[in-house]
Amino acid sequence: MNIYADDKNNKPLAEKTVEGLIGIIKGNGLKPGDRLPNEFDLAKMLNVGRSTLREAVKSLVSRNILVTQRGAGTFVSSLNGIPTDPLGLTFIERSDDEIALAFNEVRQVLEPEIAGLAALNATNKQKEEIMRQCELVEGLIKRRAPYYSEDMEFHRLLAQASGNVVMMQLVPILHHAIGKNIDRTNNELAGETVIWHKNIAVAVQRSDAVGARNAMFIHIELNRRMIYEKIVAGKNAAAR
Amino acid sequence: MNIYADDKNNKPLAEKTVEGLIGIIKGNGLKPGDRLPNEFDLAKMLNVGRSTLREAVKSLVSRNILVTQRGAGTFVSSLNGIPTDPLGLTFIERSDDEIALAFNEVRQVLEPEIAGLAALNATNKQKEEIMRQCELVEGLIKRRAPYYSEDMEFHRLLAQASGNVVMMQLVPILHHAIGKNIDRTNNELAGETVIWHKNIAVAVQRSDAVGARNAMFIHIELNRRMIYEKIVAGKNAAAR
Repeated sequence: MNIYADDKNNKPLAEKTVEGLIGIIKGNGLKPGDRLPNEFDLAKMLNVGRSTLREAVKSLVSRNILVTQRGAGTFVSSLNGIPTDPLGLTFIERSDDEIALAFNEVRQVLEPEIAGLAALNATNKQKEEIMRQCELVEGLIKRRAPYYSEDMEFHRLLAQASGNVVMMQLVPILHHAIGKNIDRTNNELAGETVIWHKNIAVAVQRSDAVGARNAMFIHIELNRRMIYEKIVAGKNAAAR
Repeated sequence: MNIYADDKNNKPLAEKTVEGLIGIIKGNGLKPGDRLPNEFDLAKMLNVGRSTLREAVKSLVSRNILVTQRGAGTFVSSLNGIPTDPLGLTFIERSDDEIALAFNEVRQVLEPEIAGLAALNATNKQKEEIMRQCELVEGLIKRRAPYYSEDMEFHRLLAQASGNVVMMQLVPILHHAIGKNIDRTNNELAGETVIWHKNIAVAVQRSDAVGARNAMFIHIELNRRMIYEKIVAGKNAAAR
């Protein structure tokens, strides 16, 4: 669904071709990593010329819906159509720490609510997935292995279990953007992360919405304090 | 800032050219609607061939950072780099009402916090802008004119005054996506919108953070109830 699209039918051919391609992906139930039919067949299916098709493919590549590999073909992107700079931060002039703090404030508001909804709405299968993911992250942290992407997946599973599709899409965006900071601070908060992730997962398993919400609140506040302290320390150092 | 970018220096020429173009926009302080130098000059400035430049321009057009007008040149887009489907909802299969409800739940969590922060952080100039925008929307509603984009601007000004750049970028995205529904429901909630917008704007002007937060909470809850009732009515109609 293009959320900006209006309902007019007089769309240019380029746009119709893009929609046709999306229709083919959806209609065939193609998942990330699946290959699309070849150029010749696609052009035939959509009743367009090769150059129109190529422009449409390029447009979907730039939207992270498709990915092309030279010689191998065109595939559904694992980025699931989440764009490169979803929030349009290209022209925002702030330091990395200030941006990280702003993202954290948004997470502080959203994610406790998500955890509470997950405790209410998660199916038994989702509860198990969340607990398994929690243990996976714990294992990585204990072996001092990189855990960032699995940490993000833990939060994404909670958002998915919340039943709110917008939150599900929003959480990876809010996390991706602070990835650089998490790497820097791996060691400082890893122990706390293990504890509070577990508290969240256990509360969700017990359908304890208040417990899940509060555990998430504390988890994110510990992150926020750390980023905040860094900014204050940086300002003090600059003033000295 | 490309929030996904890593810090490696071995980027392909295409990516470097894209970053060079962004540098030119930023470096010259170009704003939405401003025209870029012509193709010949741009290629010279970036030390690349015309075809590389054209690919880079296309890439920025697809990211809603630039817009090209045949014969007139290339301009900075008024969409400010906010992408077409920022949340990657292309492959989410839900009804418009269900998506609108999910967006509303996210707004319900975020926007009261935004209003509270705006009451604390708004400058006098921002307080005046918010009040003026509130009166503008009120005028449109009373004349039964379309008010959706000015309504969104009211909420964006609050997010801007909150001092959190991520919230500022997020609010238009959350509103754009529910634009279709607001138009449908123009008349039902217009009177309530006038009242609660005014309550929000007055509370911000008085630096009354709790009042601003609570007024926003009620404003959004009234919207949510309406969407929720529509979904229930739809289900009942389908069951009959």
